[in-house]
Amino acid sequence: MELEGYIAEIARNVNGIIMGELEKGKSSPFVAQLYEASAHLFRGGGKRLRPAILVSSLDLFGGDRERGYLAGAAVEVIHVFTLIHDDIMDRDEVRRGLPTVHVRWGEPLAILAGDLLHALAFSLLGRSLSGLSSQVISSALDLFSSSIMTIAEGQAMDISFEKAENITESDYLDMIRRKTAYLFACSAALGSKIARADESDVSKMWEFGIKIGTAFQIADDILGIFGDERETGKPVFSDIREGKKTILIIKALSESSSSERAVLLRVLGRRDPPKEDLEKAVDIIREKSLPYAQFLAQQYVESAISTLESVDSKSIDSKNVLREIAMLTIRRKK
Amino acid sequence: MELEGYIAEIARNVNGIIMGELEKGKSSPFVAQLYEASAHLFRGGGKRLRPAILVSSLDLFGGDRERGYLAGAAVEVIHVFTLIHDDIMDRDEVRRGLPTVHVRWGEPLAILAGDLLHALAFSLLGRSLSGLSSQVISSALDLFSSSIMTIAEGQAMDISFEKAENITESDYLDMIRRKTAYLFACSAALGSKIARADESDVSKMWEFGIKIGTAFQIADDILGIFGDERETGKPVFSDIREGKKTILIIKALSESSSSERAVLLRVLGRRDPPKEDLEKAVDIIREKSLPYAQFLAQQYVESAISTLESVDSKSIDSKNVLREIAMLTIRRKK
Repeated sequence: MELEGYIAEIARNVNGIIMGELEKGKSSPFVAQLYEASAHLFRGGGKRLRPAILVSSLDLFGGDRERGYLAGAAVEVIHVFTLIHDDIMDRDEVRRGLPTVHVRWGEPLAILAGDLLHALAFSLLGRSLSGLSSQVISSALDLFSSSIMTIAEGQAMDISFEKAENITESDYLDMIRRKTAYLFACSAALGSKIARADESDVSKMWEFGIKIGTAFQIADDILGIFGDERETGKPVFSDIREGKKTILIIKALSESSSSERAVLLRVLGRRDPPKEDLEKAVDIIREKSLPYAQFLAQQYVESAISTLESVDSKSIDSKNVLREIAMLTIRRKK
Repeated sequence: MELEGYIAEIARNVNGIIMGELEKGKSSPFVAQLYEASAHLFRGGGKRLRPAILVSSLDLFGGDRERGYLAGAAVEVIHVFTLIHDDIMDRDEVRRGLPTVHVRWGEPLAILAGDLLHALAFSLLGRSLSGLSSQVISSALDLFSSSIMTIAEGQAMDISFEKAENITESDYLDMIRRKTAYLFACSAALGSKIARADESDVSKMWEFGIKIGTAFQIADDILGIFGDERETGKPVFSDIREGKKTILIIKALSESSSSERAVLLRVLGRRDPPKEDLEKAVDIIREKSLPYAQFLAQQYVESAISTLESVDSKSIDSKNVLREIAMLTIRRKK
């Protein structure tokens, strides 16, 4: 099975569902802008990785593809809702190569666009589950809503870390687990749950999702400093400017000499640091923490794959896809 | 049956459920602030009118009270989520006599507090529906999520009206229907649906909710200009300062002479208009549109009560409660 085509087919179906919903707003002139703003980031590409994880987890247990596309649309819509709100909080101005929603439509409409998508996701989830047993519906709804609450907790931690000192690697891992890994885990568990996998396999798929989500965020933090701006679609070094306590910063601070530490502290959280300092800081990070971060991400991917191998499924193809997706989380340029 | 005690018992149960959920955040120091911010407005009183409507609509058809309290908590949590986000958009600084969430904790945490509550509401709804038939769960989930989308549309309209000219009474009624009346309608329909009322009765309860919600918003707009600040807990005249196109403003603009119109246009949307102009404007509104707005609200209440009478229920007590709640929407001071 060819991964690119497999993911592209899922993306096509999921996009069709989402854009179909967001076209509805065109009927009223007063709300057209709200729907435009809500659709904006879906037009900027994006990998649709979470729907791909959801649908391949569903395929693993022979679930119904139509339900998978609807639930895949639900998790992607949640993802984009969090991007819109996070961009307001982080004052980020570019995303997926486009101006962020609040830059283009103003903050009030950006807040509302996120809220609209948040509710839309539950509507899509409901359609995906319609006709399944009452027990499956309730359990999926609980999984989905509690995951979103946890994502909000993760974002709150990320923000509070900016001003906090002495954030440890374990604090960081706890934070990215909530902020990022939970939606990956929710996708994998939801796909298998809709396909009526055993509870023990659903738990394993949850763990698989947590692990690849953690690897994904570490890779994302690496790309945030060492990625190519033209590939990632967002400005490099913004994490440094915002004072984000990523693993790269935490490790560099703990492993560096006192003079190096002084350079790092001079640039962290400054909107416009001297270019020379910024370059020095990046060199320190490259030496002191990049190899460790790469190693850590690799470990999470390997552990994820071994969890996946323990799942009871006869679909070799779907396992292969999920294994490739796991590796993709750290072997990407954007 | 004594209305005050009836509503107080519902409020006590609903508050217990909500505060129980929001206490959970205390376990982690990094997210404690987020849960504090989310709990803030629940501590400032509030009438718990939507849960009262939900539970009395459930009583009307003999539903299970525990489910009613959980669903009542869900609609109240949605209400407070929209208040937190609306206060950011409208730059309001006081609510229920307390500083608004974004004033106290900053905008990022206020956005997240709203998001956390939004997801929590679906979790509560899920618990309320657990064990009911698959069909009822799906239909309630659809009702709830689509109502929240519509509320976001209403708020978008309210904002776009501020800068728009020639907003008509019919535009206003369309806007408040979405922004306010939908959650009242959702409450009444959800309560009756959980109690397994016939579809035709659920539809009637929906209509009842739309009508009392519309009356409620007109009364709210009246209190926004003519209410007692100590009772309402929010600054009077803020609607005028924000240039909100309420029925009072629309009607005053269309009924006034050109010199009166000039006075109105001088104060509308100005953060700090001269006191003399503001007083003149309020006098014009008192003369030209207050009686009409009061009449309109009264009409909606009467129509709501006649819809209620047509519902097939043997519970005279519950009908009496709902009739009293309908009248309360316009006979309140806060």
